[in-house]
Amino acid sequence: MKLHDIPTPALVVDVAAMDRNIRRMADYFAARSCKLRPHFKAHKTPAIARRQIAAGSCTGITCATVGEAECLAGEGIAEQILIANEIVGPGKADRAALLARDVDLIVAVDSEYALDDIARAAVQAGSNVGVLVDVNVGLPRCGIAPGEPAVELAKRAADTKGVVLRGAMGYEGHVMVIRDRAEREARAARSMERLLSTVRMMREAGLRCEIVSAGGTCTFDITGAMEGITEIQAGTYVLMDSTYTYDDLPFELAFTIHATVLSRPRAGQCAADAGLKACAADHGNPSVKGIEGASVLHLSDEHATIALPADSTVRPGDRIELLPPHIDPTINLHDALYAIDGDRVVEVWPVAARGYLEQRLVAG
Amino acid sequence: MKLHDIPTPALVVDVAAMDRNIRRMADYFAARSCKLRPHFKAHKTPAIARRQIAAGSCTGITCATVGEAECLAGEGIAEQILIANEIVGPGKADRAALLARDVDLIVAVDSEYALDDIARAAVQAGSNVGVLVDVNVGLPRCGIAPGEPAVELAKRAADTKGVVLRGAMGYEGHVMVIRDRAEREARAARSMERLLSTVRMMREAGLRCEIVSAGGTCTFDITGAMEGITEIQAGTYVLMDSTYTYDDLPFELAFTIHATVLSRPRAGQCAADAGLKACAADHGNPSVKGIEGASVLHLSDEHATIALPADSTVRPGDRIELLPPHIDPTINLHDALYAIDGDRVVEVWPVAARGYLEQRLVAG
Repeated sequence: MKLHDIPTPALVVDVAAMDRNIRRMADYFAARSCKLRPHFKAHKTPAIARRQIAAGSCTGITCATVGEAECLAGEGIAEQILIANEIVGPGKADRAALLARDVDLIVAVDSEYALDDIARAAVQAGSNVGVLVDVNVGLPRCGIAPGEPAVELAKRAADTKGVVLRGAMGYEGHVMVIRDRAEREARAARSMERLLSTVRMMREAGLRCEIVSAGGTCTFDITGAMEGITEIQAGTYVLMDSTYTYDDLPFELAFTIHATVLSRPRAGQCAADAGLKACAADHGNPSVKGIEGASVLHLSDEHATIALPADSTVRPGDRIELLPPHIDPTINLHDALYAIDGDRVVEVWPVAARGYLEQRLVAG
Repeated sequence: MKLHDIPTPALVVDVAAMDRNIRRMADYFAARSCKLRPHFKAHKTPAIARRQIAAGSCTGITCATVGEAECLAGEGIAEQILIANEIVGPGKADRAALLARDVDLIVAVDSEYALDDIARAAVQAGSNVGVLVDVNVGLPRCGIAPGEPAVELAKRAADTKGVVLRGAMGYEGHVMVIRDRAEREARAARSMERLLSTVRMMREAGLRCEIVSAGGTCTFDITGAMEGITEIQAGTYVLMDSTYTYDDLPFELAFTIHATVLSRPRAGQCAADAGLKACAADHGNPSVKGIEGASVLHLSDEHATIALPADSTVRPGDRIELLPPHIDPTINLHDALYAIDGDRVVEVWPVAARGYLEQRLVAG
């Protein structure tokens, strides 16, 4: 199949650019004690995860949901899987506990409720589930308060049957959006001190803390260079998106949305077939690649309305490429990624963990 | 299965409320010459489409993509399928032409390019594809200019082998967002005059125009009451969303996102497991149902960060319901809808046309 035969809308991956991203990240961690635990939630695509692991420098893999962990385990991607998220809700702990019979599974916990639930499920399944105490390092989302509260939860984990305390994590997601390098470094340092001081307290209390997990694409060489951090949970770096194109990051945009021009209702405007169901809009509209002066005015369900230069010769049937601003929810809209080398489609990769696995099972 | 056993995040449909919406819409059109052609793109769920058709007052069904039409044809939902969209791009016309061997298929065209492409494919497939000339009525998206340009395209359609001219359509999507009834009526009238004047010119030129298709949920009884409009393409009405809750619309919110509270990192805040991969954010954040003073602060990939009243007793494991602001791209994130009667799950409906069918075929 040639590039221009791909049915649109479609996500098209430049394999060479992606492989360079993978290589750069693996090289950074190769000679360090801190390693990489690439985040599967970014792409949900086993073919990509395999390349990340094969490049070396990885401690295992990170994911965000039990369904992703089930997919990773089923595909045999990595020996150790970290669900870097609280897995609370019907069936989740039980599914994770079953999985822990076959793989080295670690989950994040930030409450007694979540800890007791996974412990109950593990005892019932006859498995042991690793836990990291998830410390709030400033991102307004999950995580127990650093210091005493986190240490108390760690002690409870150490004393609870069915779970094995492995360490702590803390995701400085609020730092990723800071474009200025110096400010990003300063904010990351403040965030990580909350995690690292908690880890010191855990160790002083005699608690096991072999894993200290943190970081993302925009702090890989900031948090990843800090004494005491054992692994970085970066995801976006592998394909990148138009939000994270900071000067200091050595990663390339390795995928675009391919769309077909459907309509040319007036001069200076066209409609293409990639809308909200092909590109997530939470970080704003995608940008238009390769047409000087063109910009996306609006995304509706199935359309991108695009402003074109007045003298544009774009016409129905033409191909247009859009740069998505947020990789994770965009890829989650698609069931396949088209992997290209030049203008040749070399492979089609299933986005095997798209959506929520339990829904796909009941929907058949 | 009980309501509280549904794995979260999940979309939960109140069947009784949905059936009341379906009944109200069908009743409105029962005694009119104008009929309903419910839009499948809103929910992509054959079980819902079947109920819409079964309620009567329908001319057939509307959809937005060839994949949706393939799904509808495969499920035998309706005798006549309108793809109310330009189907330009690799394989689309050919797939539509194949489909037209088995069902009465009509597609929108707004350019010679699109018209000639579907005609070529139909001749090759040995089928006939109906076409509506898609007239731009003010929405900055698709549609040929009203008047002469549209009539010229209609003439070309009438003279082209493989296609059968069936009429015209024009979607006043820009009018849907106007909350004020009087202004919405005035703007709809202006938009529809562009369509109806074009239809008069087509008829004066001796061209066939049995279908004049337009309208949506927020203009069903405005555009639907206009002389000359033969059908309304409403979709959202069946389940509704928090954007279209106008006082003058007789439809109920019939579905919510069920989420589980994962974390309670501080007083006045919690994190639940429904983020950008469970709820489309293009119309803003979802609202929180049933907790006075609660609001969604932020959606990230797998989390909703929710502000709670200071004295809230919400804790990890609790269920929270969110009202999605935009039905179409939200349902498109899910593979199943849980249909409930009270606290009992009565059926699980596959969102069978979710995503892009051609990707699912190659992804296996």
